[in-house]
Amino acid sequence: MNIIEIIEKKKRGGKLSEEEIKFFVDGIVGGSIADYQASALLMAICIKGMDYEETYHLTMAMAYSGDTIDMSDVGRVILDKHSTGGVGDKTTLIIGPIMASLGVPVGKMSGRGLGITGGTIDKLDAIPGFSSQLDMDGFMEHLKTVGFVDAAQTLSLAPADKILYALRDVTGTVDSLPLIASSIMSKKLASGANSIVLDVKCGSGAFMKDPESAGALATTMIDIGERAGRKCVAVITDMNEPLGYSVGNSLEVYEAAEFLKGTRQEKGLKAVVLELCKNMYLLSDVYKEGEDASAVIEEALSSGRAYEKFLEFVKAQGGDFDAFMNSYNSSGVHKKEVTVADVISAKGMTPDENSTYIFKSIDAGTMGNVSLKLGAGRVVKADEIDPDAGILFDKKMYDVVKAYDVVATLYSSDETKLTEAYDIFCSGIKLEEGAEARYSKSPILQIIKRDF
Amino acid sequence: MNIIEIIEKKKRGGKLSEEEIKFFVDGIVGGSIADYQASALLMAICIKGMDYEETYHLTMAMAYSGDTIDMSDVGRVILDKHSTGGVGDKTTLIIGPIMASLGVPVGKMSGRGLGITGGTIDKLDAIPGFSSQLDMDGFMEHLKTVGFVDAAQTLSLAPADKILYALRDVTGTVDSLPLIASSIMSKKLASGANSIVLDVKCGSGAFMKDPESAGALATTMIDIGERAGRKCVAVITDMNEPLGYSVGNSLEVYEAAEFLKGTRQEKGLKAVVLELCKNMYLLSDVYKEGEDASAVIEEALSSGRAYEKFLEFVKAQGGDFDAFMNSYNSSGVHKKEVTVADVISAKGMTPDENSTYIFKSIDAGTMGNVSLKLGAGRVVKADEIDPDAGILFDKKMYDVVKAYDVVATLYSSDETKLTEAYDIFCSGIKLEEGAEARYSKSPILQIIKRDF
Repeated sequence: MNIIEIIEKKKRGGKLSEEEIKFFVDGIVGGSIADYQASALLMAICIKGMDYEETYHLTMAMAYSGDTIDMSDVGRVILDKHSTGGVGDKTTLIIGPIMASLGVPVGKMSGRGLGITGGTIDKLDAIPGFSSQLDMDGFMEHLKTVGFVDAAQTLSLAPADKILYALRDVTGTVDSLPLIASSIMSKKLASGANSIVLDVKCGSGAFMKDPESAGALATTMIDIGERAGRKCVAVITDMNEPLGYSVGNSLEVYEAAEFLKGTRQEKGLKAVVLELCKNMYLLSDVYKEGEDASAVIEEALSSGRAYEKFLEFVKAQGGDFDAFMNSYNSSGVHKKEVTVADVISAKGMTPDENSTYIFKSIDAGTMGNVSLKLGAGRVVKADEIDPDAGILFDKKMYDVVKAYDVVATLYSSDETKLTEAYDIFCSGIKLEEGAEARYSKSPILQIIKRDF
Repeated sequence: MNIIEIIEKKKRGGKLSEEEIKFFVDGIVGGSIADYQASALLMAICIKGMDYEETYHLTMAMAYSGDTIDMSDVGRVILDKHSTGGVGDKTTLIIGPIMASLGVPVGKMSGRGLGITGGTIDKLDAIPGFSSQLDMDGFMEHLKTVGFVDAAQTLSLAPADKILYALRDVTGTVDSLPLIASSIMSKKLASGANSIVLDVKCGSGAFMKDPESAGALATTMIDIGERAGRKCVAVITDMNEPLGYSVGNSLEVYEAAEFLKGTRQEKGLKAVVLELCKNMYLLSDVYKEGEDASAVIEEALSSGRAYEKFLEFVKAQGGDFDAFMNSYNSSGVHKKEVTVADVISAKGMTPDENSTYIFKSIDAGTMGNVSLKLGAGRVVKADEIDPDAGILFDKKMYDVVKAYDVVATLYSSDETKLTEAYDIFCSGIKLEEGAEARYSKSPILQIIKRDF
C-alpha cells in the first residue's frame, strides 16, 4: 500500500477501503506520511467526498489513534454533549450544571477555539483561578463527586484528529461533511462517554448553512456513534442569529450564570438548553419511564440547584467566581453602545424618532466576524484571546425598537478594533420600519434519534 | 490576499486572477506559503482544472520566479526541442547533432529523470567523462562553437517549478494539463530559446493517453509560448510502443550513435526524428524559402556530418566516446534473452514452432515499468541509476516472428531484478498467431502550429 496511490484513488472519486484509511491515519501519526501528502488527500476528500462506510472507518481509525478513556469504573451512564460550533453558544456552561444537579454525570473534554469566539475552555479561563488542566485521576474524581467536569483535551487523545484539524484549518479543507463528522465523533468515541447529545448548528454562523446539510451531518454522526456502541441523539438548532444575549468569553460566562440564577433568560437560548437537557435526561440512568423530563429540568433551574451546582463546579476546578463577578467588565475595557439610529445612519438612511422598527436579521456569521475583530477569538493558534471582548445584545430578532434604543454594546481592549468592529456590526443588522411585532420561530429545527 | 481564500476559491471551481496566481508562486519561493498549502491547491487544480488564462499566468509567474537566460547576444535564432516524456525517447541525442551540423544552434537545458528511464542528462552520463555541469559562459561558448549544447538545468532557473514539480510527484498531482503545460513552458521560457518544437507524446507510455488530451496539452503550450513571444510548433507522436529499439541509458546512447552513423535506424524513431528536425529547420534562420527541408536533413545524416557533430558535441563536453564504445555492455551486466516461446509460455499457452506470429502490442507503459524494475530509472530522487540496465528489442510492433526468435534482451546489474522484470515484460506483449504482416501506422499523429 502506498499513500500516492491512495491519494490518486480519491482524486478520481474512488472509495477508500478500511485498510487504506487506517494506513493513512497510522501514517500521519507515525510520521511516515508527510503533511503535504495529508493535505492533498484532505482536499481530494473535500471535493470528491466520502460515503458513510469511509467516514465510519476514518472516525474509528482516528478515535483509536492514541489513548482512549475508559469511564466504566464510574458504573454509571456518562453523558456528553457536543455542539458543532456557533456564535454565542454557552450552552455547555448551563447544561452541565443542570444535569449534574439532577444526578446525571456529564464528563466533557473540550477544545480551545479557533475562529469566532473561544471554545468552552477559553470561556472558563475568564474565571480567575479556573483550571482545565486535569489529569485522568482528577477528571474521574470530579466526575464522581461534582458530577460535571470540563477539562482541556489531553494531547494523547485522538492525535490523528489533532494533526488533521490543524492542517485543515490552514489548507482550506474545513467545510467537508465526512471530515467534520469524523473529527467530532473520533474525539467523542475516544473520550469515553456512553451517551452523546449532539447540537448540530445550522445557519450563517455555522459550518452547515442549510437544514439539509445539517441533517446529513447529524445522521452521519448518529449512525457512526450507534455503530460504535454509543447512544446518540442529534438536535438541529438555528444559528442564523447568535444564541443568547452575549458573544465573547467573560460575557458568556456571565450570561450563563444569570441564566442559571434565573435573572435573565433569553428565549432562544432557553429553548435550546431545555431541548438538549431533555434529551440528555432521557438517555440517562436516572430517568424513570413516564417521568416528565421537561418539568424535572425546569425544576432544577427554578429551585436554584442548578446554579448551586455551577458554583460547586467552578470551585472544584479552582475558580474564584466572586472574583470574576467583581472584576466583570471593569478591567479598563473599552466599550461602545450601538443604537438603532447608528445602524440606520450607517446604512446611509435617516432614523425617524417617531417610527417603530423591528429587527429582521442579526446575522450570526457577521457577528462572528465582529467578535473576532473585537479580540474574542483566534485567527491562528498562537493568538491571545481578550477575555472581556465581545458583543452584548440588548435586543434580539423580532424585538420591536425605537430609533434611539441601544441595541447592543461592543467591548474590546483595543479602541481601534472597536471602531472597525462597529462598521461590521452595522452591516450585519437588518431593520424594518413600522413593522408589527411578530413571534419568533423556535430555534429547534429537528430532532434526530434512532430506536434504542 | 491570503492563501486559504485562494485555495478555497479553486476548491469551489473558481477562476484565479493573475494577482492570486503570482501571490501563490511568490509565496512558495519566498517560503511564506507552506508546502502543505501548496499541495492542497495543486490537488484542487488537478480536480477543478484551470482555464487557458490561469495556465498562462501560472506559467509566467513560474518562468520569472528565478533567473532567466538571455541568449540574444548569440545574434541567432536559438532552437529548443522538448519532449513531454516517453519510453525509449532518445531523439534529443540525434536531433541536436543533425541540426547543429546544418548550422542551426540548439541550446538545451535538460533535467534528470524521475520514473521510467533517466532524462537526457542521465543518458549522457553513461559516457565516461561527459559533463553536463556547465556555467552560463561555458553554455554560450559551446552553443557558438559546437552549435549543440545540453546542460543540466541550473538551480536558479524557474525555482517555483522545481518546488511544485517535487511536490506533485509525491502528492498524486502529476496528471493535470494546466500543471504539466505550465511546468514545461515555464522552464522553456526561462531558458531563453527563441523557437521551440514540442514533441507531445501520446499513449500508454505517456502522461496523455489519448490524442484529444495530447492535442489539448499541445495547443495550450503553443498558445502560451506564442503569447510570450516564442515561435512554437507541436508534433503529437505515438507512445503506445517504446520509441526505437532500446530503453535504458547506455543502450539509448548506443542506439542514437548507430542511428546517426546509419547502421541501424528503427523506422518509428526515424519518422519522429525527421518530423521534429523538419519543423526545427523551418523555424531556423538558415532555412530559405522553397528549400526541401526533409532532403536537407536526410543529407545531413547520409553524409555522416550529423554523426561527426555528435562526436564533436560529446568531446566538447568532456566525453570519451571510444571508452564508451569499448565498455558498452561488457561491464559484467547480467542479461536475459526473451523469445517468442517464452512470452507464449508465460501466458500459459504452448508455442507452435511451425507457426508464424505477429506482434500486436508492445505496451509502452508496461515497458516503462520493466525498465524501472531493471534499474534504468528512479522511483525517488535519491535512487541511483544503473546506466547499463534496460531493454533492447530485436523485434518491434507488426514484425513477423517465429516461435524461437529472440524478441528482446533484458539487462540489469541485479539478477533478481532481471527475473522480476522478465515477468512484467511478458505481460506487456500481445502476439497473434498466423497473422499476415501488416504495415505499421506512422507514429506522427498530428502537427499543430500557428501562422507566424
